[in-house]
Amino acid sequence: MMDASGTQSGEDKLHPAEVRDAWPALSWEERAEAFHLMSRGEAEDLFFGLSSTEQAAVILSLPIDERRSWMRLLAPDDVADLIQASPRDQRDSLIALLDEHTRREVMALLHYEEDEAGGLMNPRFARVRPDMNIDEAISYLRRQAREHLETVYYAYVHDEQQHLVGVVSFRQLFRARGDQFVRDVMRTDVVTVPEDMDQEQVGRLFKQHELIAIPVVDKEGHMKGIVTVDDIVEVVEEEATEDIQKMGGTEALDAPYLRIGIRSMIRKRAGWLSALFLGEMLTATAMSYFEGAIERAVVLALFVPLIISSGGNSGSQATTLVIRAMALGEVRTDHWWPIVRRELGSGLALGSILGVIGFVRIVAWNAMSGAYGEHYLAIATTLGVSLVGVVTCGTLAGAVLPLILHRLGFDPASASAPFVATLVDVTGVLLYFGVATVLMSGVLV
Amino acid sequence: MMDASGTQSGEDKLHPAEVRDAWPALSWEERAEAFHLMSRGEAEDLFFGLSSTEQAAVILSLPIDERRSWMRLLAPDDVADLIQASPRDQRDSLIALLDEHTRREVMALLHYEEDEAGGLMNPRFARVRPDMNIDEAISYLRRQAREHLETVYYAYVHDEQQHLVGVVSFRQLFRARGDQFVRDVMRTDVVTVPEDMDQEQVGRLFKQHELIAIPVVDKEGHMKGIVTVDDIVEVVEEEATEDIQKMGGTEALDAPYLRIGIRSMIRKRAGWLSALFLGEMLTATAMSYFEGAIERAVVLALFVPLIISSGGNSGSQATTLVIRAMALGEVRTDHWWPIVRRELGSGLALGSILGVIGFVRIVAWNAMSGAYGEHYLAIATTLGVSLVGVVTCGTLAGAVLPLILHRLGFDPASASAPFVATLVDVTGVLLYFGVATVLMSGVLV
Repeated sequence: MMDASGTQSGEDKLHPAEVRDAWPALSWEERAEAFHLMSRGEAEDLFFGLSSTEQAAVILSLPIDERRSWMRLLAPDDVADLIQASPRDQRDSLIALLDEHTRREVMALLHYEEDEAGGLMNPRFARVRPDMNIDEAISYLRRQAREHLETVYYAYVHDEQQHLVGVVSFRQLFRARGDQFVRDVMRTDVVTVPEDMDQEQVGRLFKQHELIAIPVVDKEGHMKGIVTVDDIVEVVEEEATEDIQKMGGTEALDAPYLRIGIRSMIRKRAGWLSALFLGEMLTATAMSYFEGAIERAVVLALFVPLIISSGGNSGSQATTLVIRAMALGEVRTDHWWPIVRRELGSGLALGSILGVIGFVRIVAWNAMSGAYGEHYLAIATTLGVSLVGVVTCGTLAGAVLPLILHRLGFDPASASAPFVATLVDVTGVLLYFGVATVLMSGVLV
Repeated sequence: MMDASGTQSGEDKLHPAEVRDAWPALSWEERAEAFHLMSRGEAEDLFFGLSSTEQAAVILSLPIDERRSWMRLLAPDDVADLIQASPRDQRDSLIALLDEHTRREVMALLHYEEDEAGGLMNPRFARVRPDMNIDEAISYLRRQAREHLETVYYAYVHDEQQHLVGVVSFRQLFRARGDQFVRDVMRTDVVTVPEDMDQEQVGRLFKQHELIAIPVVDKEGHMKGIVTVDDIVEVVEEEATEDIQKMGGTEALDAPYLRIGIRSMIRKRAGWLSALFLGEMLTATAMSYFEGAIERAVVLALFVPLIISSGGNSGSQATTLVIRAMALGEVRTDHWWPIVRRELGSGLALGSILGVIGFVRIVAWNAMSGAYGEHYLAIATTLGVSLVGVVTCGTLAGAVLPLILHRLGFDPASASAPFVATLVDVTGVLLYFGVATVLMSGVLV
C-alpha cells in the first residue's frame, strides 16, 4: 500500500516519490534516466501525473520500439493533447504509433482548439438504449468496458437515430431493480455543452451542477464525447495561473517557472514592464510643471513616493478583488453600479484612514523634531487631503478598469496591479501638487 | 433537454438560468421568493450549485416543515459543511432534522477542520471483499446502492479485520469476467490520505494520480471515507482565490465580492494598506537625507516616481511568478538557488532594457527642448544606472521574499505586489540618490 507521499516500501529501485519531488529540477537527460530506473508500474504512475508537454518529451526520449506501449496507456483526448504539445516535425511519427481506431478518434480531436470543450473531451463513453432493462444495460455496459470504455460514471441513453435522449448515473443504475427499464430511471434534463464552448465556461457548469462528466453534443444533437471533472481541475488551475501572472504584470508564462527558457521569460516580462515604464514617464512630465513649487518647498517632494504608492496599493487591492470576482462569475460588467458604489465607499473610508495617519505623523514628527518648520499644519493638511483623493481615485480606477477592459473585449486580468498603479501615479502627482498649490498658496508655494 | 446555459423550454415559471444569473445581486428575501417560484426539480438544480453558506441561508428561510426534505438531498459531507456555515444558534435545529444514521455520520465529520481531508470526505463509499467473484461483487454493490451509496467510481476492498487492502475501479469491475475474483483484479497500491492532510496537498495528489476519488484512512488503517474530485475543483478554486486576494495586498475575503459586508471588506483591506503606508513613510525619511541635493538640483526629484515604480513593477512580476510556482508545487524553498540565479539574470536584463529607454528618453527630450540643461548626460546616466540597480533589486526581493516567508512559516502569498513594492521603494530612493551623489558630485549636487 502506498501512503500519502506516494512512497512504497520494500523496493530496491528509485522511489517514485523521490523522482516526482526532484522532477522539476531534473534535466531532460536525467528524467529519461530516472524513468528507466523505476519499475514499469511506478513509471506509469509518474507518467500519468505529467503534463502533456512532459509526456511528449518522455516518449520522444525513449527508443522507438518502446514508444507504442506508452502511447497505448493514454485515452484519446490525452493522446491528442500530447501530440499538440510535441514539436511539429515529430507529430506524424507519434500519430503513426496509434492503432487504426484510436488514430481516427485522435485525428477528429485534433481539429478542436485546446481550450474548448471539443479539445477537452474523451470520445469514449458508455451508451445504453432506453428500451433495455437494467440487467440488460449492465451486461451491455460490461461488454463495452471490455472493448474501449475509459470512464464509467454515467451511461448515456441514445435513441435509434443516435440522438442523446437521457442520462443514467451508475448510482441510479445500481439502485434500480433489474427488471426496470432504462427509460424509467434516466434523467432527461441532460446538461450538455456544444463543441466550441470555452473551457472556463465548461468549468463553471461543472461547479453549478456538481457533475463528474458532461456530454459534448454537436448541432445535430449527436453526442461526440464527454468532458470529465478531472480535466476541469487542470483547467481551473491553468486559468487561475494565467490570471495571476497577468495580474502580476507579466504575460502568462504557459510553462512551469523553472522549465521556461530564460529568454522567453524575459520577453514575457519586458513587454509590460517597458510599456508601464513609458506610461510612468508621464509622472516626470507632470512633476516638471511643479518644479517651481518644489524649488520653493523641497519638503513637498519628500512625500511624493508616499502619495503615489498609496494610490497604487489601494488600486491593486480593488483591481485584484474585482478581477477575481469576475473570473468566478460573481460579478459581471452589468453589475458596474454596485461595484462602483462599494469601491467609492471603501476608497473614501480607506483614504480617510491613511489621511489621518499621515496627518498625525507629520504633526507628531514636527512636535518631536521641528522638521517641517512653522508651516507644518499646512503640509499635514495637504498630505491628508491628497491621500483621501488619491486612495479614492486608486480604488475606483482599480475597480473600473477590469470592467472597461472586459467591455472592450480584452482580458480583465490585464488590469494588473502595476498597470493600475501606473495610471494612478500620474493622477496622484497632479492631485497632490494641485492640493498643495491651493492650500499653501502664499504660505510656501 | 437543457442546453449549455441551463435554459429549459416550455416552462411558465421562472427560468432557473435567469435566477442563477441574477442570484449574486438578489437580496435574501428575493432569493427565498425566487426559490419558491421555481419547480422542485429546477430549485434542486439551483440548490446543488450554491455554496454551503447560501444553502444554509436558503434552508433557514424555508418553513420548518419543508427544511427536512432539502437536508435529505445532501450527502453527509455537504450537510456537515452546511452546518459549519450556519449561525451557531441554528445548528442544533438543523442537526435535529437528520435521521439517526446520517446524524451519526455528520457528527463524526464535524470534528474535522473544514480544510483537511477529514472535513472534505464523504463517509459513504462502496465496499467489497477480496474473496467475492465479480458477479457477486456487482450484485453486492447493487444492494449497497439501494441503501446509501453516493458515489460509484471505485469499490474499496476490505479484509475481515476491516482493513483497506485494495481498490477496484468500476471500469475494471466491468471489464473483468464474472467468475474472476476481486482479489485478482484489484490494485493493492492504493493512494490514501490521512484524516488531517491539508486540502491543498490532497488536491495535488489528485492531480498527480489522475484519480476521481481518494480514500481517507485513519492511523489504524481503517477507511473513514472518500474525498471526490468534484470537491477538489472547489478547493483548487478557493485556494487560488485566497492567494490572488493576498497577492493583491488584502486579506482573503472568504466570501463572494458582492455578498461581503462593506465594513468587513474595509477591515480586510485597511490592515495591509495601513501597514504598507507606515512602511512607505520610510521613503520620506530616506528622501529627507537628500533634501540638500534636491534643493540644488530639483530635476532629480522629477524621476523619483519613475525609479520607484520600476522597482515595484519588476518586484511584482517576480513575486507573482514565484508565489504561483510554489502554490503549484513547481518550486520549493530548497530550489532557492536556481530561482535566485534566474531572477538575477532576468533583473539585470530587464533593468538594462529600462535603463536604455530611460537614458535615450532624457537625451532625446533634451535634444528637442533643452529641458535638462548642460548636465543632461550626467542626469541620463544617473537615471540609467539607477534603473539597472533598482530593477535588479526589485526582481530579487520579489523572488526571495515568498521563499523567506514560507521558511518562517507564513503564507508565501503574503509577499504581495504592494508589499514588495513598498520594500523596494525605500531601497530605490537610497540607490537613486546614492548614484546621483557619486556621479554628479561637483556637477549638480
